[in-house]
This record gives sequence, C-alpha cells and structure tokens, in this order.
Amino acid sequence: MENFNFYSPTEFVFGKDTEHKVGQLLKQHGANKVFIHYGGGSVKKTGLLDRVKKSIEKEGLDYVTLGGAKPNPVDTLVYEGIELCKKEDCDFILPVGGGSTIDSAKAIAAGALYDGDFWDFYDRKARIEKALPVGVVLTIPAAGSEGSSASVITKESEGLKRGTGSKYLRPKFAVINPELTYTLPMWHTAAGIVDMMSHIFERYLTPTKDVILTDRMSEGVLVSIMEAARTIMKEPKNYEARATICWAGTIAHNGVLGVGRAEDWTTHGLEHELSALYDMTHGAGLAIMFPAFMRYTLNQDVERYYRFATKVMSVPENHEHKREAALEGIKRLEIFFGEIGMPTTFEEADAKKEDIPKLLKTLKQNAGEKLGTFMSLTLDDAKKIYESACEK
Amino acid sequence: MENFNFYSPTEFVFGKDTEHKVGQLLKQHGANKVFIHYGGGSVKKTGLLDRVKKSIEKEGLDYVTLGGAKPNPVDTLVYEGIELCKKEDCDFILPVGGGSTIDSAKAIAAGALYDGDFWDFYDRKARIEKALPVGVVLTIPAAGSEGSSASVITKESEGLKRGTGSKYLRPKFAVINPELTYTLPMWHTAAGIVDMMSHIFERYLTPTKDVILTDRMSEGVLVSIMEAARTIMKEPKNYEARATICWAGTIAHNGVLGVGRAEDWTTHGLEHELSALYDMTHGAGLAIMFPAFMRYTLNQDVERYYRFATKVMSVPENHEHKREAALEGIKRLEIFFGEIGMPTTFEEADAKKEDIPKLLKTLKQNAGEKLGTFMSLTLDDAKKIYESACEK
Repeated sequence: MENFNFYSPTEFVFGKDTEHKVGQLLKQHGANKVFIHYGGGSVKKTGLLDRVKKSIEKEGLDYVTLGGAKPNPVDTLVYEGIELCKKEDCDFILPVGGGSTIDSAKAIAAGALYDGDFWDFYDRKARIEKALPVGVVLTIPAAGSEGSSASVITKESEGLKRGTGSKYLRPKFAVINPELTYTLPMWHTAAGIVDMMSHIFERYLTPTKDVILTDRMSEGVLVSIMEAARTIMKEPKNYEARATICWAGTIAHNGVLGVGRAEDWTTHGLEHELSALYDMTHGAGLAIMFPAFMRYTLNQDVERYYRFATKVMSVPENHEHKREAALEGIKRLEIFFGEIGMPTTFEEADAKKEDIPKLLKTLKQNAGEKLGTFMSLTLDDAKKIYESACEK
Repeated sequence: MENFNFYSPTEFVFGKDTEHKVGQLLKQHGANKVFIHYGGGSVKKTGLLDRVKKSIEKEGLDYVTLGGAKPNPVDTLVYEGIELCKKEDCDFILPVGGGSTIDSAKAIAAGALYDGDFWDFYDRKARIEKALPVGVVLTIPAAGSEGSSASVITKESEGLKRGTGSKYLRPKFAVINPELTYTLPMWHTAAGIVDMMSHIFERYLTPTKDVILTDRMSEGVLVSIMEAARTIMKEPKNYEARATICWAGTIAHNGVLGVGRAEDWTTHGLEHELSALYDMTHGAGLAIMFPAFMRYTLNQDVERYYRFATKVMSVPENHEHKREAALEGIKRLEIFFGEIGMPTTFEEADAKKEDIPKLLKTLKQNAGEKLGTFMSLTLDDAKKIYESACEK
C-alpha cells in the first residue's frame, strides 16, 4: 500500500427532500449573498430552482443567479460568472446541477478571488491559493464533482479541455436527493453511470499490489452500480436504485476508492479530446475509450484484468486461461455499456477515423507526449487505441 | 436507503514515517501550544514520543505532556488533564496512542472549554457546544476514535462507562503509520481486530433493506480484516497486512460503512458493562458478546445472517437450509476469534455467571430498560444473552 492522504471534508446531506435544507446549510457555513449557478431550463421546469430559492429566502439570505452552464462547461461563461460575482459581492457559490455546472461554479469560485485570468489555473501557470466556498445541490450523479477537488473547463476558442484541482475547490456541503434524478433522461443517466465506473477504473486498474481492501470495496461498488443501472432502465423511479447510483457517483470520486494506490487517468485524457472536438457527452466518450484502452493494455497486467473479469463482470474463474477470461470481462463490460444505450465505437457516436490526427494534436497539447501510470504510453500508442475504438 | 448525513472531515495522513509530519500538520491547523496526551511507557520506549516532540519543536511550537491514559480511560485523569490544559493555556490536544488515549483526549478537549463538570456530557446533562481541536497520532488500530465523533469514559468511583458524541470531537487530522503497530502485543492486535469488526457489525446487522452498496463494501472490509489478521498472526511485521488493519479500523467507524441504514450498538452496550466491571479489554469483551448476541437474534432476520455467513464467512450457499448456514457463519466467526487468541465465553475471560445481576444493574443505569435497533430487547433478553455467553 502506498502512503496516502485521504481528506474528504464535504458534508454530504443525502436523501428525500434534502434540497429544503440548503438555506440552513448555507447559513451554517456563513453565507450572506449566494451566487446560484445552474445549467439549462430543467431545474426551472422541475421547480427545483424555486425550492432552492425559497429555502435560501427562508433563512434571510440574498442571492443572484446565473444559468447557462453547458455540458463540457466553457470559459466564456466562467468569465461572465466571475464578473457578476465580483459586482454583486457574493460570498458563496451554489451550483444547482450536475458535474458541468459544478465545475463551472468551482472555476468562478477560484476566479472571483484571483487578480489574473482564471484560465491560468487550468493552463498550469498559477496555483489556486484561495476560492469562495462552494456548496452543491446535485441533480446528475456522474462526475463526482460534488465531493472532489477537481474542475474541468473547455476553452472554447482553442478547443482545449483542461482540468485543475485544489483543496479550496472541495464543496463544503453537497445536497443529494435521488428523487431529483427520476426525470433525468436515460441518455444522461447512462452516461453518468459510465462516468462513475470510469472514475473507479482509473484507480482500480493501476498495478500497485496489496491494496486488497480498496480492491474489494471498489468491486462491491462496481457490481452495485451495474445492478442498479439495469433496474433503472426498467424502472426509472426506483428510489433504491437511484440512491445507489447517486451515492456510488460520489464515493467513486471522493478518494475513498483510491487510497493506497497510484491513479491512471489516461483514458480520461484520451476521452477529453473526443468530447472537446465533437461536444460529445463525457460518459459516452468514456464508453468508447475504456474497452479500447483495456484491450490495448491487457498484456501489461493480465492478473488485474482477470480479477476484474471474475470479481466484477461475473466471468467464471478459469486459472488455465486467464487471458481469455480477462478478455471476456472486457467484452461483457462493452455489452453492458451497449445495454444501457451507450456507444462503444467512434462509428456509433458519429466520430470519424479521419479526425484522429486532430485528436492527437490536442492530446499532445493537453497531456504531453507521455501518458499513463498503469502502462507507459506514447502518442503512437494513443493513435492505436483511437484506431481500435473506431469500429467493432 | 434511509436519509443520511455523511461527514468525515478528518485529514488522514497514512503510511510509513508519517509521524514526522505531525509538527507541520499542527502548524497548518493553527496550533500554538500543544497538549500531548499518551498512555503508558510504550510510546517512550519505542521512541515515538521523542519523534513527535522533535517534529513539534522543529516547527517552533510549545507543548506540555500528560501520560497515564489507561484502557477504559477514567474520569480522574480527564479532570487532571483539563486542569493542566487550562493552566498551561494549551490550544490543541494531541493524543499519541490508541482509542483510550484518544477518548481521554477528546474529553479533555471538550472539558477545557466548559465551565461545568465535563461528566455532564457523558451523563447526558449537557451537550458539547465547543472543544479544543484534536489531532491524533495513532498507535493501535481498533476503536476508530481517530476518525469518529465519539468518546467513551469510565467514571471510576461508580464503575459507570459512558459515551458521548459531537462533531466538535472529530479529529482535525490523524497520522497513521502501520509500522508503529509492529510491536503491538498480539493480544492488543487481536482485540483491536475484534473491535473494528464489531463496529461494522453494529451497522451491517441492522435490518434496513436496500443498502446493498454499503453491504458489499462492508463485506469486502470484513473479509480483508480476517485475511490480514491471519497474516499478522504469522508475520507481525507484514506491512501490507498491518496497513490493511490500520485503514480498516478507521473506515469501520468514520461512518462510510453506515450510510443509509440504522445502527444498533446493543452489543457494545452489553460489553461496556463487562469491561467496566472486570477492567476487561474492550475487544475481548466484544468477542464474547457478539456470537452470543448473534445467536440470540438469529431468528429476527435469518436472511441477514445467511448473507453474512455466505458473503463474509465463506459458508457455501444453501438456500434450502438458510438458518443452518447462518448458524455455521456465527460458529466460524467464533472460531476465528479463538484463532486470534480472543476469549469467546465468560469462562475463558475469568468473568463470572454470578456477576450477571451486577452487569444488568449498571446496564440499566447506562442504557435504560429497552435496548436494540436490530431487535427490540428487554433487560430480561440481556440476561439471557449474558447467560448464553458464559460457557460453550
């Protein structure tokens, strides 16, 4: 087991009707004027935004609102948010939405207390030294941003998608009501499921030995996610299955399933270029890239993929033919992604083989020429992985 | 899944040589004058106390020390600690030790900022509204107190053992170096293992349905604990096994394995009377009480015990005879406790059947006449459980 720091100070307030507690939580955390950030119209349509405002008003707090956060959130809205936040003298940022809205809000929180261009943080020109406190009302279980220190923003003009991280970005609290996800379109539900599974894969697949405790916890969560996903496909309003997905999405990325081991994040890097180029849903891109990455890196650690196949994908144990069993595990994962409506090839997502040079160009800009922890990869390897993902 | 709040803000700094970071951590958390609290001579003998002092001195911080914390920590030392802490104007409490030292330190932390008698908090006459910040250097993985909001103290003059809890008692940080546990006597290692398993049982056994995600994580941790325990019995200096036990002890009680379900704590209540009367090691008392409690409550939820038997204790599935399989699971647990040197009957621990009325008297004082969440129990039930624990 590697040395580690585990620090997840976010207060998670989980369950039915919990959005009514948001005013109280803001007050406890010292908010005076709240910057509410959201995405499209769904939080208005469902009445959630009104319930949140009411809860804030009940505590006598002020607020301003800024909507418009998009999937793959963009720098232009962040600049607008920072300006509004400064002008209105807000002291607490409250995203109401999914990972994109939260990431956008985190960028605003850091940018509002920074004299330079907030993009410096994403461009690795500056480190975040402070940020306004962030609290979250989660509507899409996927990115785990409600419990993480990370934020990913796309610079629209250059098509660059980059991430930063800081303890100052970790939400003070996150309100998670699984009922709010009943109306989430199946596509977003499924993409969120792939996203959270991928967060576990980026940790679970690293070759560190002797983290059996973390392995077993991760396997339990992965199995539970797939089981709940299949229930939701049939019964979108099954509370227990929605609750499992919501909580799994949070712990998949708050660090508890990563203790004591290295993390990889190569597949996220490969995917970022796909979603930046095509404005593809992040989870859909991951459903394409993960099986390809897994097959490409299989020989690096057959034991690890064999464990994954037998413990997570229910492939029968076969000590004589571990490689075949491991491959069967990857195949079953791909079938599962298809089952929940996700693409698993470029072809199925209208991505083009001819664009691979473009993907490699931005990959080089964003991630450099050397990738990978699980396996050292070059841009030529990345090319081969992209190519293998084009069609079945 | 029940609504829940999950809040575990402690920063866990885990791994080899981490005790050298304690000065730095104290400084980051604003300490000026540190109250170091410890138990017997072992932290002196091993040189740990000196390393901790050196790390504190390196950051230019002051400190005072108070040793003498005992297993089943007592009120008299807490009073002494509060007085010393006030006199010396300490602003940070640093227990260096196991659960008893940490619990004693938490009582001092709360008492130092309270005008009345600190026992009020344990006697349910007052609620903790503030406390000095606590940081921990852990030497015994067992109680999980390094990541919990709880503290248990024994009032010596009356033989009362009582617990309290408050968010103000949660340690700001906990330094956990598994190497420090190499020299822990096998008895304490084993008692700690029973203690952490019991913390999971008090949650895992409650009848709430549909917390499958938490169930699977808990099962993974329980299996890993038993596996690591067997390794340690053969190789006390096996780093990975010690690390597994250390981290398992923390997450067994920081709340992550309790989300979405009720908790029970009846068996802890029954055990508290044993350890208060005989000054018995808490873990040893739990090894006696848990199999007895499990057999007594088996019919309340055969399915739950069947799950425990098949998922944790490796009993083969047998849908025709679930009750028998469940019983076999409890038997295997008892055998495991014996394997690691723990008593599983009164007889083996020199406790006396004749003392049961005494145990029931203090149980009534401490816990009242109604016990249990998993199953509603009366004092008469408690009597029968004690009786069944007397001998095999």
